[in-house]
Amino acid sequence: MSGWLVIAGLGPGDENLVTPDVRQALDGATDVVGYIPYVARVAPRDGLTLHPSDNRVEMDRSRHALEMVAKGRRVVVVSSGDPGVFAMASAVFQAVESGPLAWRELDIRVAPGITAMLAAAAQAGAPLGHDFCAINLSDNLKPWPLIEKRLRLAAEADFAMAFYNPRSKARPEGFVKTLHVLNEVCADARPVIFARCVSTPEQDISVVPLPEARPEMADMRTLVIVGSSTTRVITREGAPIVYTPRSVVA
Amino acid sequence: MSGWLVIAGLGPGDENLVTPDVRQALDGATDVVGYIPYVARVAPRDGLTLHPSDNRVEMDRSRHALEMVAKGRRVVVVSSGDPGVFAMASAVFQAVESGPLAWRELDIRVAPGITAMLAAAAQAGAPLGHDFCAINLSDNLKPWPLIEKRLRLAAEADFAMAFYNPRSKARPEGFVKTLHVLNEVCADARPVIFARCVSTPEQDISVVPLPEARPEMADMRTLVIVGSSTTRVITREGAPIVYTPRSVVA
Repeated sequence: MSGWLVIAGLGPGDENLVTPDVRQALDGATDVVGYIPYVARVAPRDGLTLHPSDNRVEMDRSRHALEMVAKGRRVVVVSSGDPGVFAMASAVFQAVESGPLAWRELDIRVAPGITAMLAAAAQAGAPLGHDFCAINLSDNLKPWPLIEKRLRLAAEADFAMAFYNPRSKARPEGFVKTLHVLNEVCADARPVIFARCVSTPEQDISVVPLPEARPEMADMRTLVIVGSSTTRVITREGAPIVYTPRSVVA
Repeated sequence: MSGWLVIAGLGPGDENLVTPDVRQALDGATDVVGYIPYVARVAPRDGLTLHPSDNRVEMDRSRHALEMVAKGRRVVVVSSGDPGVFAMASAVFQAVESGPLAWRELDIRVAPGITAMLAAAAQAGAPLGHDFCAINLSDNLKPWPLIEKRLRLAAEADFAMAFYNPRSKARPEGFVKTLHVLNEVCADARPVIFARCVSTPEQDISVVPLPEARPEMADMRTLVIVGSSTTRVITREGAPIVYTPRSVVA
């Protein structure tokens, strides 16, 4: 009766982007825990109990998983993308830190996955081919002034930027302000990629110059990538290719 | 005779971290092109020609691959990690842009992989669980003053940071300066993770407070992660867990 916990990344949606490492963890699990649509990606089978739960209960879900592991269950906590990028790994470790000391000695590991920004970048070309940053635009998790400060400094540093959770119905104004700040600081026509539902049948990718980017081009299922000042667009008959050269000449 | 090019990421080393998508591309290829140690990870078979080449010939390698695709070959360009992160995808698209116009209409796609920073983060806990940036510290590819500017702005933005190519024998001084800048700007004891050869048999991971980080702790096979001001270390009997909470309280 030796339990374990794997915090696993299911990738952006395409089953061909799930690593064998994650597949093996799921095959050996007694319990799978996670947000409803992610648990729905795991095939039911005898001996496996699925524990889907709603959004915004990450700490409860983490404690539940740890309690089961302490009782000897083999538990996989699933995230989409990579569990270490704006996902469940941080929540589980926060629960470990604030929980019973015995939880620290449990067998816990993180199984990485293809995170949305890298899947989106791959579809668009290579916009993250030089230095870049990743920012979660949800102000559920931090105050807006910190987000704005990071946007300004990231633009000044000339990073390409990937935005997770750019916009929701509950807080439509954050992404309006984001585009305003970027236009003010960047003051150019660098490409912006809106990548919705990457690697799923509903995938939709568009590329527009920054001044033409509109808030309604994004929703919660969109990953937004903003190029750096050096990012290039290759036009052709099909969709354009967006890439950031690896080198900056002095 | 319809050729294609897949620019594929082999992940950090563990074959269980190679996606089925990449595996299928390799199974369907006639030619594999890449840096010697990455091509060595592809099993030889009848009908497959391996084209290993040395480091620093990325543009030649890209043009060679594109020429073969134009002749109808099915070519995989391999990178370790993810091809879109400081790897071959940008080089190939630069070759496309500067090459014959017909190259723009070739069938080219990027197959993402597990990039080193996410594999390293998974081994250490979840240090990239909040906003973060990725910087290539090699000054082969950009002038040092730009690197230093980005380090200072990234620290001011309070990003966690992942450093690729922190140090080589040919340029040992860059990482010395990096640690100097970080200690000056951060002025605290946030954790620094040195993750060498992640997911391979030689994997070696250590965590030290920033003031105790030493240049010789890194080499070209090391991925370095520096926490943000909020990054936590959970001590326990085994290796410590490093994670950055998802939330910042106002």
